[in-house]
Order: sequence, then structure tokens, then C-alpha cells
Amino acid sequence: MKGRKHIVLTFVLSVFVFFAVSVAANAADDGIKGYFKALPLIAENPANPVTAEKVELGMLLYLDPRLSKSGFISCNTCHNLSRGGVDNLPTSIGHGWHIGPRNAPTVFNAAILKTQFWDGRAEDVEEQAKGPILNPGEMAATEKLVLKRLSSIPEYRKSFKKAFPDEKKPLNYDNVANAIGAFERTLLTPSRFDEYLLGDEDALTPREKRGLDTFISKGCVGCHNGVGIGGASLQRFDYGTDQGRFEVTKNEADRKVFRVPTLRNIELTYPYFHDGSVWSLKEAVRIMGEKQLGLKLKKKEVADITVFLKALSGQMPEMTIPQLPPSTLRTPRPDVSQVGK
Amino acid sequence: MKGRKHIVLTFVLSVFVFFAVSVAANAADDGIKGYFKALPLIAENPANPVTAEKVELGMLLYLDPRLSKSGFISCNTCHNLSRGGVDNLPTSIGHGWHIGPRNAPTVFNAAILKTQFWDGRAEDVEEQAKGPILNPGEMAATEKLVLKRLSSIPEYRKSFKKAFPDEKKPLNYDNVANAIGAFERTLLTPSRFDEYLLGDEDALTPREKRGLDTFISKGCVGCHNGVGIGGASLQRFDYGTDQGRFEVTKNEADRKVFRVPTLRNIELTYPYFHDGSVWSLKEAVRIMGEKQLGLKLKKKEVADITVFLKALSGQMPEMTIPQLPPSTLRTPRPDVSQVGK
Repeated sequence: MKGRKHIVLTFVLSVFVFFAVSVAANAADDGIKGYFKALPLIAENPANPVTAEKVELGMLLYLDPRLSKSGFISCNTCHNLSRGGVDNLPTSIGHGWHIGPRNAPTVFNAAILKTQFWDGRAEDVEEQAKGPILNPGEMAATEKLVLKRLSSIPEYRKSFKKAFPDEKKPLNYDNVANAIGAFERTLLTPSRFDEYLLGDEDALTPREKRGLDTFISKGCVGCHNGVGIGGASLQRFDYGTDQGRFEVTKNEADRKVFRVPTLRNIELTYPYFHDGSVWSLKEAVRIMGEKQLGLKLKKKEVADITVFLKALSGQMPEMTIPQLPPSTLRTPRPDVSQVGK
Repeated sequence: MKGRKHIVLTFVLSVFVFFAVSVAANAADDGIKGYFKALPLIAENPANPVTAEKVELGMLLYLDPRLSKSGFISCNTCHNLSRGGVDNLPTSIGHGWHIGPRNAPTVFNAAILKTQFWDGRAEDVEEQAKGPILNPGEMAATEKLVLKRLSSIPEYRKSFKKAFPDEKKPLNYDNVANAIGAFERTLLTPSRFDEYLLGDEDALTPREKRGLDTFISKGCVGCHNGVGIGGASLQRFDYGTDQGRFEVTKNEADRKVFRVPTLRNIELTYPYFHDGSVWSLKEAVRIMGEKQLGLKLKKKEVADITVFLKALSGQMPEMTIPQLPPSTLRTPRPDVSQVGK
């Protein structure tokens, strides 16, 4: 249970860095500042305030494969904390080696985005967390199974009580999501670009600044803006056969509409696009220019933009590998069977 | 790459504790000391000396799913550092959701055992590490694929050079195993029983001491002895259809012969036996008494032994979640296909 201490320590250090940078002369161009926003320290949600107890519990749940039917797949399997918050597969593998339809979005900075999932079908990370656990092609569990597993483990019962002290029955599925969500709200990765936005002109190299200028002048910033440099809107992207948000709303206007992904840590979150079909960041930039902006970007422009995008790789929060509490004889056992096969 | 710092810190602290305990009056019964041995700080192997550089690299490799064909399975998938070094499944899941034939032994303290695998077919953790990576039902990779993946990543090329500075071609399959082995040689979990062996009479409760006495007087100690409290010999265990070491040697004397498992952290490494068929530690103790000792242990004896066994749960090394270096465009891509299906 030492993971939390490190997160708290990281917070304290971050606060220092934040103020140190804030008081420095703010030299960043106001035009640029209008498009973007530096990362906060924590992505707060008034409906689910971040507390150390929730974060500690949420980290355990995030790493616990017992949230899946098989006892083999955890949130971390597809949103790997050691791999930029993704699995680096075109599309993810789920229960029974089911190959999913879409590329796993990163968990890092997910909490600052306006919507969740490629089709924006969840409002926040708390709502998002509930999905994959129950999806038959992902973790394939049921609410009942998850709650039965967790309530059979005394350490979890205690942790839920501590994390949700005012609730009569704290161990419920909403709170599983609230704890995981609170943990994810700490998974922010401040980058050199944030230092630049906060006024440190030297935080970016001349070439990165040129890339940023190209990123803005060519119009990428039209969708990739705000604190997430993406993630604030849904846009049509006519690429492949996936119908995007239409699958959720059945509204014609939503055909092939997808959430604009965050570009933070984009260097780590390959392969790209909702189908994970593109492995080269430069190629992804080129395709975006062509499909979304109707531009044939020059090789040099693509290269400059790509150099800028790599400056969005941030500092990962330092976390200690936690120890999961053991099951008891009352814990429902793993079920690796593949129904329907 | 901060994982290493913590391991080194843990070493330093352990040295302190070790000496503090060593100089204390050695009050443990000499008879007991004859059966067992306290854990060393590191499980050294003169053929593969443990260095910080190897441990750091080995931890990355241990957690890296790119050592598997699919890019989905790492050493840690079945030997989970958050779960007592196992997957808590009866038998493990491998490439293509293949359900393996045997229960995953724990990685914690594995390096101090005389042989590796349930059938003792590997001599040490270095030799062991090479097996599952290539097993078609586990990680399903080839040496060539692993080396192509790792050499395509500049950070790995650099780390192999640093870890094996005297070698002309340091990035080879032997050194993949040497680095993983060196990391595993640090995964030791000193317990209260070690403090007891080192002279602290109060490290065990009266009931745990009674359990230890029963453990010795009933004969469990005949196989579960030494520094691993198991793991020093192979024994016949006529349980289920698995032919054990016979499958390797085709020698009749090896029929149903298995390596005696370590009992360190046994509370965490359920389910029990080579087929993972028994979930209750008490039931496992009862069956062992019946099958291996020809004894019908009394309920109270089983309970006392179990209480003692729980005192073998040790302190897990503190490790920071590391960041794996990203792939490049030259890195062979994940292959999730299931050949033969």
C-alpha cells in the first residue's frame, strides 16, 4: 500500500514545480496561450473528490485482475501504466483472446478530457471505468461477480469504508468506479509544453517551436486544442468502416464521428487512430492533414509537427508496485471458460 | 527507470536489519536451525553476478509484453509482482488463451531454490527464464523475434551494453535471461520466521511456534526444509494424472515426481499443487499429511501448521513501476494470431 505515498509525494513536488514555473516571467505568446491550457495538478471532479484513500484503493482495483471474469485481465492489461497508459496493440485483447474493435485510449490525462471512449459515450473516467469490466469481449465480468469478489476480501471491505466514510454500504459498483476514477484523476503527465505555456520560453527547442507554429497555422489546432490538446470535441473522420458515434446514437449526423484523441504522450501511444492501423506518427500526421484539413502537408512540415508532438511526452507519476490483498475461500474463483465457443 | 533505486535502497535497509538481528542474542533452538536457513540478502550466482544495471534492465524485460509473440503477455502476467509472484489461477493462460497444464510457481524467492519448474528441468532462474518466452502455449515467441524486437529499441541496446560491459555483442538471448535472472535474484521476501531463525525468539507467536513444532514432529520438514522451506529436492506425489519429471527424463523412477515447492508466501500463492486444484491451505496441508506422510492429521494439527505457514509471508521488495522504452518503426509488430486454430 505504498503506492499512495509516492503519489502524494509527487503531488507535493509538482506543487513546488508549478509555483516555481508560474512565478517565472510569463513570456509565452498570448495567441498560443489562447489555444491551449497547462495541465492542472489533479483533474478534480466535484462529484467524486480525489482523496488519498480513494486513490490508494483505486490503484489496487486498477491493477486487480479479479475485476475480470477470468481473473486474468485488469484495467492495467490494456491501459498499461508502464507503456504510456496503453497496450500498444492495434486493438485490444479481451476475455477468451477476443480481439476488440478499437484501439485502447491512454489512461494518462484521460481524466481531463471532455468525454471518454472513441465514440464519447461516457462523460467522465468514473463512467468509463464501468464499461470494460462488464464488456463480454473485454473483462467479461458482472457487477454481481465484482462485488462478490471484493466483499469476500477483508482488506477491500476496510478500504472501501475508509475511502467512502459517509456511506452506509460503501462497497458498491458506483464506488468501484469512483475509486478507479479518483486514481485516474492523479495520472497527469506535465510536459515541457506545459512549462512553455506557463511562461518558460526555453522549455521548447527552436525546432519544436517551429513545429508548434506549423501545427497552429495549418489548422491542426482547430481540433487538437485545450488542456488535452485534443479530447474536447467529437469530429467526423472518414477512415475505415467503423461508424463511430453513430453506433451509439443511430443519428446520421454521428456517422464516422469520433472523439478527437489527446496528443499528450502521443509518441508512446502508437499505433494510431481508432483502429490502430497506423504505426508511424509522421504517417498519422500526414493522413490527418489530408483527410481532416484537405492539405498535402510537405515532408518538412510533417517532420516539424512531429518534433513538436514529441515535446508533449510528459513526466509519468512515480508509483510503487502495490501488493493486492489475497482472496479468501469465499471469493468467487476465476472462470476462464469461453461461453459460446 | 526508478525501480532500481528502490531496490538498492531496500538492499541497504535490509543490510541494516540483517546486522541488527544478527547481533541480537541467538536464542532460536539449534535443532530448528539445523532444518532451516534464513534468507540471504540477494540470491547470488557466481556465473551471473547481480549488478544494479542488470537488475534495472531485468525488471524492464520482466514487465515487457514484447517478449511474447502477441505483445500481450509478459513474465509478470503469470508471475505477478503484485500477487505473491503468481497469477492465482489453477493453471496459467498463454498465447491465444491456451490453458496450460500446470500451476505457475512464484517468482519470489525462486532464485534460492535448487531447481526450477515443477519438474525441476531448469537449474536456475536464468535457465528458467528462457523457457516460457519460447513455449508456444505461453509467450509463443522465438529467440529471433525477441532479439529483433529488443535490438530495434535504442534504450534497450544501451541498457544491454551497460549491463554486460565486457561483451562484444551484449544483446543476445543468454543475456535476456541473465538480466531477468539477476532481477529475480533480488526478489527475496524476509519473513518473521527469518527473524526467528536469526535469534529473535519473539518473532513468532506461541501458536506459530506450536505449529512449527508440529510441522517438524509430523515430518513435513523432511521435504520442506532449507532456506526455501522446500525447493531443495524432488519427490514423488501421486496426485492427478500429471507424470511430472517423467515427462522430461522418461525414467520410470521419475514418474509423478515433482519439485517440492517453497512454502514462503504460501498464503498468497493459492491455488495449491502442480495442478492448482486445491484452494484451501488447510486442505492442502491435510492432503500432504495423508499422501506424503501417511498420516491422518488432526484438525488442530492442521490448523496449527497453517498458522505457522502464514508466518512465512515475507516483506515484498519495494519497486517503482518503470516506464518501458517505446518501440520504433523497425520493431517487429505484435502478432496475436493463433496458428493451428
